[in-house]
Formats: sequence, structure tokens, C-alpha cells
Amino acid sequence: MATYSLLERDSREWQTVHDGTVRFALVGVGWWTQEFVLPAIEASELCTTTAVVTSSAAKAERVRESYDSIDHGLTYDEFADGTAAEAYDAVYVCTPNATHLEHVGSAVDLGKDVLCEKPMEATRERAEAVVEAASGTDVTLMVAYRMHTEPAVRHARDLIRDGVIGEPTVLNGENSQPLLDMIPDADQWRLAPDLTGYGASVMDLGIYPLNTARFLLDADPVAVQSMMCSAREEFEDVPDEHAAFSVEYDDGTLGSFTSSQNGSDETRLEVVGTEGRIELHPAFHMETGLTVARDGTTVSVETEQVDQMEYEFDYFANQVLAGEPVYADGEHGLVDMYALEAIYEAAETGQTTSVRRP
Amino acid sequence: MATYSLLERDSREWQTVHDGTVRFALVGVGWWTQEFVLPAIEASELCTTTAVVTSSAAKAERVRESYDSIDHGLTYDEFADGTAAEAYDAVYVCTPNATHLEHVGSAVDLGKDVLCEKPMEATRERAEAVVEAASGTDVTLMVAYRMHTEPAVRHARDLIRDGVIGEPTVLNGENSQPLLDMIPDADQWRLAPDLTGYGASVMDLGIYPLNTARFLLDADPVAVQSMMCSAREEFEDVPDEHAAFSVEYDDGTLGSFTSSQNGSDETRLEVVGTEGRIELHPAFHMETGLTVARDGTTVSVETEQVDQMEYEFDYFANQVLAGEPVYADGEHGLVDMYALEAIYEAAETGQTTSVRRP
Repeated sequence: MATYSLLERDSREWQTVHDGTVRFALVGVGWWTQEFVLPAIEASELCTTTAVVTSSAAKAERVRESYDSIDHGLTYDEFADGTAAEAYDAVYVCTPNATHLEHVGSAVDLGKDVLCEKPMEATRERAEAVVEAASGTDVTLMVAYRMHTEPAVRHARDLIRDGVIGEPTVLNGENSQPLLDMIPDADQWRLAPDLTGYGASVMDLGIYPLNTARFLLDADPVAVQSMMCSAREEFEDVPDEHAAFSVEYDDGTLGSFTSSQNGSDETRLEVVGTEGRIELHPAFHMETGLTVARDGTTVSVETEQVDQMEYEFDYFANQVLAGEPVYADGEHGLVDMYALEAIYEAAETGQTTSVRRP
Repeated sequence: MATYSLLERDSREWQTVHDGTVRFALVGVGWWTQEFVLPAIEASELCTTTAVVTSSAAKAERVRESYDSIDHGLTYDEFADGTAAEAYDAVYVCTPNATHLEHVGSAVDLGKDVLCEKPMEATRERAEAVVEAASGTDVTLMVAYRMHTEPAVRHARDLIRDGVIGEPTVLNGENSQPLLDMIPDADQWRLAPDLTGYGASVMDLGIYPLNTARFLLDADPVAVQSMMCSAREEFEDVPDEHAAFSVEYDDGTLGSFTSSQNGSDETRLEVVGTEGRIELHPAFHMETGLTVARDGTTVSVETEQVDQMEYEFDYFANQVLAGEPVYADGEHGLVDMYALEAIYEAAETGQTTSVRRP
């Protein structure tokens, strides 16, 4: 094992550009965009919001009044038609999963770079169409995995790469939240299959340990198993109020994960290696803790608690301004869609299911 | 939710007998018996060791010299023949899995009560024969699940029963250890299918979260899935150097578990409920911590760190002396053997596998 300093870190190690601004149109101004994205862009170094796109004129007006930089409140039709397109350089898509394709398509037609929320779309086929839409154009398409620029996660990845925990063997992960306490509305899109896609909890929550494991291990899913259960009435149209699923990665590690949209708030991802272990806890709900254990010593590493959305936006802008590729490009997001398709299929068939390869 | 005091606990709540002694013959005097069992019985209130049974006369002699109470060092043949049977009341079986049946059979023939290590035997069929051997006799057969008398685990069970975490939804569990660092011998029985049975890590380690979840939830496994991997040469004869497996319990909860015999030491079991969560961490390696979270408050409960083997032996002796049944009887152990059979079968077939019912 190389000597590794736990203390010397640059939380913005990916940043190469310090001048320049990417002007964003935010497509979809729901809870997430209002609570997390707008403040994050306001705090960012390389981004500004100049337009919002929403179905509600009143909401657009309210948001415009709160942020000086926003000059345009557009309807979805106006956005698709290219109204005020000169006012922004890039588009952030944060609408129900099944509408991503439409909005990414509009952005690509307008020649705008795109940061698209995960999961990339409602189904594998539609996600393939998203990638296809951007393919062969100059548009940068990135899928919004905010864990990739979270300092604790990057730190964990470096420790694993340096062999601090030996060979990774098994992973344990979980992501639970009480969705109906957070958004007390049974009619929300996350519970409607035509908008959310395959289901409610693995699509929205399970994707975090699934994808963060890929990032930590530099490995992709090969095969999956899953069990799903929906008991509460509001979840009757989706299979996975709760889910337990296992993932075999192509480095031979086995991941064992749970997700629940009706569970107490809890997030964790742990990698057990032959020589030690690394734990991210809490992991995924906008705050990330890091613990490293080896040879009987357990170290709690307090990394800088950053605004994960600010870092994600600045990383995207940095790559766009530098003309460099993004890590979580369309192909990267597609691998998760292939895994999600297999996970939901496995729950139905009860069989270990191979994950399609790009 | 009933008001629940986190502080008022009797760590020996099960104890009803304070006089009397159960004299034990220990069958199998390997690492576990020497390091943990002999000192535990020495410290116990209701037990004493009067005989040891082993294939090595030298080992028997060494152990006899260390403990005044031990009058007899017997060979397996002498034990089977009833030599010095008047010197002990009960038998503790801690030999390789595939030899439990033989020794339990001898004990039953001698009319001795039996505390048998888990898993009960190497295969489901042999475990059924163990139960059959004791069935219809006056012999008390208990399977040695030490978590059932661990104060933190009992405390966790009471909290769950009292509704402190709402409805249990998903469980996450893990049990890893570096077997070949602990016992640096590739020829050990845990790696030999004819002695260990179905495999190495779920049989020996995965059984802890599998069974402790049953105890916490008062629920039994209905269906399982699993993935297994053996990479290191020493594990070539067993399928599960590492394993990830999921369990559906009959209360609708889904458990997601990992086990590794070549991983860093780590044990945990967490129950996520609709209103809170309970975590045992560390969980299974002779020390157990308890954390309870609800409504934004996380409480670390420091229960008495007891000698888990001492408590297990005293509980067994208490029930025998009181003429009361044991919790982990043969039928209880058999349910785990049914689950283990299904878990190993599921890894081979890649299919969700129903767990046989007693």
C-alpha cells in the first residue's frame, strides 16, 4: 500500500477553469429545483440561472422575483420553440423521468449543453433515445450524479484505488426516505408508472448505491437479483415501495442494497475489502460522512461538507468551458438504465438477470 | 407508541433459577471452545465443565490441567460408549458441522441434554435427522444462537415490538471476517464441503443476520435469492468466499445481507422502519452496540457488554433446571437449515427460491 495522507485534499480537484460563466435554463421547477438547485447555482463559481421553464406562469413569476439573474420565465412550448434561447447556454432537466427525452431533445435541437437528472429516463428504450438525440452533435450531455463530485466520495475512491482496504469484496448499501411525509401527495409523479417508469424506490433511491459503487470501484454491473414489495395503498401502482437487490459488478464484487420510499431517512454505502473497509454514512442525502478502517484502527474523516448541487453544476460548467468530456456522459447513465431494467425484470421473474451491455 | 424507557433493563431477564448446576461435557475442543466456551462456563452461574471430548489426548490433558472442574478427558469413542457419563448432565457439541448428528445422537442415547452449535448440521437432511434423534425423548435440544441472550439484541427486539421504529420495512446486514488470518490453515474444516456442508461464509457468518432478523422481527424466511463468489485458491471447493443474499420474511420485510470469509472484520444488522431505525453495530463478534433513531434523534444505547457465551450457557442451564422449553429448539434451528439450503440452491440456479416450511 502506498503511503496515503488522509488530510491533504483539494475538494475541487477537478476544477481547471476559473473564469467564465455558463448560463442555465432550468427545465422543471419543482421541489428539488427550488430548494436545492436555484440556491446552488446562486452560490456557484461558474454558473448562473437566466431562465426557468415551467407549466405554471405563477411559479415562474415567483421564482423570477427571487433571483435577479433570471430574465425569462418560459412555458414548455416556448422552450421547445426556442423562445429566448439566446439568453442561456445550457439546460438543466429536472422534470418527471418520462419527460426527460422530450426536453433533452429540445435542448439538443437548440444546440444547448444538457445536464439531465437521473435516472436518465423512465425506461431503457427512452434512455437510449436520449443518448441518440445528443449523439453526433456538439452538445455535451451529462447525467446529474452529484456523488461524483462529493469530496468524501472522491476521497473514498482514491483510498480504494490506493489499496487501503485491499481487494474490495462485498458492498452494503441502503437509501430510504419517507416520501409521503416529504411530499404529502398520493398523486405525485414518482408513484405514477407512466411518469416514473419502472418503479418508485430503486429508480429514485436505489440508483444511488448502484451508481456510487460503480464510481468507487470503477466497475460496471453484470448481473442483478431483486425482491420488491408494495404494501401501502399509495404505492399500489408501483412494485417497489421497498426493495432489496443484489448486484454483481465486473470486478467480481457483490453488492447488497435496499431502498425504501416509506422508511425512516437513512443512507449508507460500505465497501468491505480484504484488508479494511470504507463507509460513507450518511451517504446520499446532501451530506456525506467518511469512515476508513484497517488493522484495527478506525478513522472518521471529516471532509468539507459542500453543497453537492453547487459542485455538480460547477463541474459540468468547468468541463463545458474547458471543452473537456464529462465523466457521467450518456453512455454512463445508460449503464444504470440497463441495470434498472434488469433489476425490475428480476423482481418479476425471480431470476438472476444479466445486465445488457452498451 | 408506548412510552419506553431506554434505561431500565435486566440483562438476565430470562433467569428464573439461581441454584443448581448443569455439568457439561464439551464435545470438540478447538479454537472456539478453548478461547470462548471454557472461560464462559467458568464464569457462569449455573454451569460447570466436568468432561472434554476430543480426538487428541494431549489436548484433553492440557485442557484438564487448566480447569480444576474437569475430571474426564474422553475420546470420541469413549464418549459414544458412555464412559464417565455419570460425570455430566449435558453435552455441548462444537465439532465440524457434518459431525453434529453423530454426537447429538450419542448424547440423546445417553439421556443428556444438548446444546448444539449452529448451523445445526451440514445439510438440511442431516439437520432433520438431528431433530428426529431428540424427538420423543426427554432430552432438551437447543441450537447455540448466542445473539438471543445478548442484552443489546433483546433490547432491540423489545423496542421493535413496542413500535418505536414503526413498521419494519427493510433490513441490511453483514458479517465478514478474514478466516485465513484467524486460522492460517487452508486445510481447515470450514473450507471442506464434506465437513462444512453447503458452503463457507453463509453457513458460518450469514446465518447471524439471517437468524437474528428472525429473532428481532418474530418472523421466518419465506423466499431467498443469492449470489456467491469464490476467487481465492483456498476457497476453490466452496461456492461462497463472499456472498450477497436477500431474504423475504413472512411479515413482508426484505433483508439484504452479505457475508465474507475473506473480508475485513465487520458485523452489522439494521432494521429500517416506517418511523425510525435500529442498528446493531458491531453486531455479531462477541460485542454488540445498539443505536436507535426516530424523529431526528439518534440514541446510542450502551448496554452491558456481557460474555455472550456465558449468557447462552446460563440460559440453557436455566431452562433445563426449570424444566422449561428453550427458545432456539430443534425446529427453530431447522428453519435456518431450510433457509440455508434454499440460499445455496438459489446461488446455483439463479432463481428466487422458496424456503421449505417445517
